[in-house]
Amino acid sequence: MRFLHTADWHLGRLFHARSLIEDQAYILDQFVELVRTERPDAVLIAGDVYDRAVPPPEAVALLDDVLARIILDVGVPVVLIAGNHDSAQRLEFGARLMQSQGLHVAGCTSATPACVSLHDAHGEVRLYALPYAEPAVVRDALGAELPTHEAALCAQLDAIRASHPAGVRSVVVGHAFVVGGAVSESERPLSVGGSGAVAAQAFQGFDLVALGHLHRPQTLDGRVHYAGSLLKYSLSECGHDKSVSMIELGADGSVQITPMPLRPLRDLRIVEGALAELIAAAADDARRDDYVYARLTDTGALLDPMAKLRQAYPNALAVERTVLARGGVAGDAARRLREQSTGELFASFFREVADAELDDGQRGALEQVLAGMAAAQRESA
Amino acid sequence: MRFLHTADWHLGRLFHARSLIEDQAYILDQFVELVRTERPDAVLIAGDVYDRAVPPPEAVALLDDVLARIILDVGVPVVLIAGNHDSAQRLEFGARLMQSQGLHVAGCTSATPACVSLHDAHGEVRLYALPYAEPAVVRDALGAELPTHEAALCAQLDAIRASHPAGVRSVVVGHAFVVGGAVSESERPLSVGGSGAVAAQAFQGFDLVALGHLHRPQTLDGRVHYAGSLLKYSLSECGHDKSVSMIELGADGSVQITPMPLRPLRDLRIVEGALAELIAAAADDARRDDYVYARLTDTGALLDPMAKLRQAYPNALAVERTVLARGGVAGDAARRLREQSTGELFASFFREVADAELDDGQRGALEQVLAGMAAAQRESA
Repeated sequence: MRFLHTADWHLGRLFHARSLIEDQAYILDQFVELVRTERPDAVLIAGDVYDRAVPPPEAVALLDDVLARIILDVGVPVVLIAGNHDSAQRLEFGARLMQSQGLHVAGCTSATPACVSLHDAHGEVRLYALPYAEPAVVRDALGAELPTHEAALCAQLDAIRASHPAGVRSVVVGHAFVVGGAVSESERPLSVGGSGAVAAQAFQGFDLVALGHLHRPQTLDGRVHYAGSLLKYSLSECGHDKSVSMIELGADGSVQITPMPLRPLRDLRIVEGALAELIAAAADDARRDDYVYARLTDTGALLDPMAKLRQAYPNALAVERTVLARGGVAGDAARRLREQSTGELFASFFREVADAELDDGQRGALEQVLAGMAAAQRESA
Repeated sequence: MRFLHTADWHLGRLFHARSLIEDQAYILDQFVELVRTERPDAVLIAGDVYDRAVPPPEAVALLDDVLARIILDVGVPVVLIAGNHDSAQRLEFGARLMQSQGLHVAGCTSATPACVSLHDAHGEVRLYALPYAEPAVVRDALGAELPTHEAALCAQLDAIRASHPAGVRSVVVGHAFVVGGAVSESERPLSVGGSGAVAAQAFQGFDLVALGHLHRPQTLDGRVHYAGSLLKYSLSECGHDKSVSMIELGADGSVQITPMPLRPLRDLRIVEGALAELIAAAADDARRDDYVYARLTDTGALLDPMAKLRQAYPNALAVERTVLARGGVAGDAARRLREQSTGELFASFFREVADAELDDGQRGALEQVLAGMAAAQRESA
């Protein structure tokens, strides 16, 4: 059986205040064409399909259009789960009505996760759709105390194992941070305080685990796979080879993964050099329309370098002066501050003001407040 | 052929800062039961299904649940259009995928409006779904200059007439303000400056026009019908008999309309009297849980009358002191101000400051700005 696995579309995302909707529509056109030529048995979209709980209307219209084309025009079913950026309830609108058409949406967490049964010449395959959920949400659904992301995920997987028939191949579609995975800057942490990470061993017994969350395509343990994000959504992803993944599930449950690269409308690149050199080089640059982040090595004063750069690279995103970013104590301090989490920043603020370290009780209270704020922000985002 | 016609559910509405979602879920349970017992050929929901462009997640979940029950559990198709409170693009998510299940959603305006064909013993009936749209949106869709709501609606209806086969019965599901209709305070005006009203004659030739927008159930010209809102959404609606409408469309295109009242969880009432009298009367009031707006006739000082009233009427919404509201020039002026539109308020401000009336150009510019603000507010609401 063959699956086309993708994740982290982040439709509606703004990057340096620019809407990426045109880039997303462009690459999704290619994705639909790939589905048409490859005709997999199902498309798996493993969460963060939108960038925020309330996406802009054009993102809603784009997802609507892409799903209708894949399902109605091409005739391939889709399994779609909510990620930590999506609103579980909003994403699930119409789920019951669209199911018989071949769109299986799992937004909200329930005691019995959605299961899609498919068949090939070698028999049945069961796909379990596990939307992202905070441990507290899983606790409410399952009625058990589950303090961590790992405990919550394990409880859900145990429930699936208990009813999964022996000898039937199994696939989990999920959204999680697996220990050992390589992170990028555009992933929103799942947990404040803890990492929210789960061990790959949690998925033991399942033939294929098709995940979303981490933006770099990567495979752990041979069958726990991140398809990666649709586009480069942060500077830390400039070196990524983005792709969607064709996954062949053999008769014996073996897994073979082939990356299928798509071609973005505009790439994301970092260019480095003196402003005049960069502008001169742009003349021969066939990809001047790329999103360009410029690290300027000039040491003297520069008058409005952004405006000048934009004449050469119309989609330039921002400029950084390496002499300022790297030079001296102030630059280092600013860099260190940027790398700290809100919790760490608060702890150093507390140290400064109270001349004492946070004790365990205070730290716990702080983490609760931050987690509450993060949850509220997710819903109102 | 029989239709169950309803409109203006305003799911997610807040009333005096209270969420009405529990009341809406309660009355929609009855509505689903009515569909189950009456088994109409279709349910028509004529716009403003949500109270705002981005409804709260619980409103999305409620609509999802109600539609799935009507269509999948009871097996009756639904025609649903966007009203001026809904976001056309958001409402239309999944429309193509849900159509074959029997959910016909028309959110965005197109050159050829959605048409649903149904049959009974007497032949075909065509239902045309005309979502609410600003004249500028209709102009873009039809490619013609359409300055007013009436011109925009007439252009759409003309296009329908041009392709509608003779001898086939026709139904329009729309969302509009028809001249002569009785208004309520909870309807958001369709137009700033003009009224946005259209003449009932615009619908000439159609057998039945099932409308939303006006919150009082009412019929104009015998076949242009407002089902009215699901609940009382403003004090001006206290005297309304809310209902949904069973409409029988005869073989000859004749229309017979029967109101089908539903029972709200809590009614909305105005009570008037001295605070002590009202509290005493509540003891024998079987409907103490109603939403109560109190007009207090006391003339002396009252200490926190709202808290006292809430002990008798737990869902009391607000109190008004009649002696203050009615007394003297200040009260009259405040009342007059409240009754003025933003455009009128600006005009008097201009008169005050510039010692001149707005000329036609200025008035036109003002109306454009206000319309733009209203459109932006609708989308971001």
